[in-house]
Amino acid sequence: MSGFFAQRLTVVGLGMMGGSLALALRGYAASITGVDTSAETREYALAHKIVDYATDDLRAGVENADVVLLAAPVKAIISMIRGRLGSYLRSNTLLIDIGSTKADICEAMSVLPVGIQAIGGHPMTGKESPGIAFSDGEVYKNRPFVLCPSRRTTPATQDRAVGLVEALGAVVIEMDAARHDHVVAAISHLPYLLSAALVATVSKEGETDDAVWRLAAGGFRDMSRLAGSDLSMMGDILNTNTRAVATLLAQFRMQLAMIEAVLIAQENGKLVDLLRPTREARLAWMQSVENNKQENDKRGS
Amino acid sequence: MSGFFAQRLTVVGLGMMGGSLALALRGYAASITGVDTSAETREYALAHKIVDYATDDLRAGVENADVVLLAAPVKAIISMIRGRLGSYLRSNTLLIDIGSTKADICEAMSVLPVGIQAIGGHPMTGKESPGIAFSDGEVYKNRPFVLCPSRRTTPATQDRAVGLVEALGAVVIEMDAARHDHVVAAISHLPYLLSAALVATVSKEGETDDAVWRLAAGGFRDMSRLAGSDLSMMGDILNTNTRAVATLLAQFRMQLAMIEAVLIAQENGKLVDLLRPTREARLAWMQSVENNKQENDKRGS
Repeated sequence: MSGFFAQRLTVVGLGMMGGSLALALRGYAASITGVDTSAETREYALAHKIVDYATDDLRAGVENADVVLLAAPVKAIISMIRGRLGSYLRSNTLLIDIGSTKADICEAMSVLPVGIQAIGGHPMTGKESPGIAFSDGEVYKNRPFVLCPSRRTTPATQDRAVGLVEALGAVVIEMDAARHDHVVAAISHLPYLLSAALVATVSKEGETDDAVWRLAAGGFRDMSRLAGSDLSMMGDILNTNTRAVATLLAQFRMQLAMIEAVLIAQENGKLVDLLRPTREARLAWMQSVENNKQENDKRGS
Repeated sequence: MSGFFAQRLTVVGLGMMGGSLALALRGYAASITGVDTSAETREYALAHKIVDYATDDLRAGVENADVVLLAAPVKAIISMIRGRLGSYLRSNTLLIDIGSTKADICEAMSVLPVGIQAIGGHPMTGKESPGIAFSDGEVYKNRPFVLCPSRRTTPATQDRAVGLVEALGAVVIEMDAARHDHVVAAISHLPYLLSAALVATVSKEGETDDAVWRLAAGGFRDMSRLAGSDLSMMGDILNTNTRAVATLLAQFRMQLAMIEAVLIAQENGKLVDLLRPTREARLAWMQSVENNKQENDKRGS
């Protein structure tokens, strides 16, 4: 049980992730306000009691809040922080964003007025379906939630943020923003680019032989899923994490080149030897995911 | 409804795919024999009435059959065909394999005695779980089943093979072996290598920062699944399709390099423009898969 409680909690951005924050924190706030530019979204959020109040005015939405959550795409978050947001907030307000890259956002936080308790966040969870209608208060449960300190993060900020993450049912992982961005480049942004380049390759083949599309099955379905990601979100992510992504791309090319050399040399035994550790690493990771899930189920029951 | 019927049908190799063939063809054969080297597998197949007879002796299993299905890894299929199998079979026997690459197998079929009705097959379906206990007569239903002619494929062979595929409930797609191998290199073997190289890259990162494993989520799970594939099966596949796979790897590198160039140049608008067609191609393909599914459901009801 978390000791976290907000008098007036505001969620800026009522997409699937923002709506889910509001739902998950319902019992931990006296009132919840949503800020969104879409009238339809605000009406939905009010009608389904996801929020108590809704507005399209950032200032009105945040000026009396003691906790503000920014649930918008990375560049929108940066614009808000670099813009007027800081002047709207009361001193001592806890400000957490949930943008997918952290270095640029945490850097932007350092221009906020002293007294704003700002800290970067990134929940490692999501759903393919966007929009408030897919909000789900359970989406953060038992999932890692990274917290990255900014120059506006005091020990008190850290404590309150940890309390909020625990209220979500998520698992706190604290690390600096640069490390976070390198890690997600490896496990998330590189995989997206591989998925996109794979689809581009198959599309090119499809120009001369459309059988590629008719024969494509489960393997291709999994490997192409990320290529269907929202482009404005991915554009922001890649544009704010270019160096780490380019570094990981170079690492990936080396690994692929090693496999290719042994493949082309037709050394079948050596190829299987080279591939064996990747198979074992994948199976070990899946096993650890499964073990965690069982532990969480046990704890929950 | 298919006009296919076998007096004595034999499945060589009682794994998940072979067991599923036997289950799916139950109503289309007077008797079904299974050939497998594992006593445990044979006992399971008999006990669950997946087959009527079981043996570990290839000759005994196939010599009276009028239809023989080879459901083994690619190199085992080639060994059987290049070995004594042809001398065991009666003239006019329909011989179909379900190996994942087709050029080497169809080439091997050309050494079979004239009179053997041999044709290559590849059902575009499967399950992650191996072994006869996961057999499922529905696994071929509405899935593409490629047929590739060999020098032993007569028009009569073709007709009987089409009838068998229709009996499985699968969708016949006929093409030559070289074309098949190029297509599956794009949609299946290239994706496998990307998955393996991704896991190798993340493993390398994991040596210095194990947070990669703790933060990895759904995107990585999908993109790493193929890396967990059975290695002896994948070794056979890659070793019998090296040229096509190497060609597709070169195509992939070009696509990835184009994306990388725009990424590193920090031209965010251009990056999204470059990625847009891959998103649309993925969504269009998923839509066509969904449409096919609905048509099949309608036809089935």
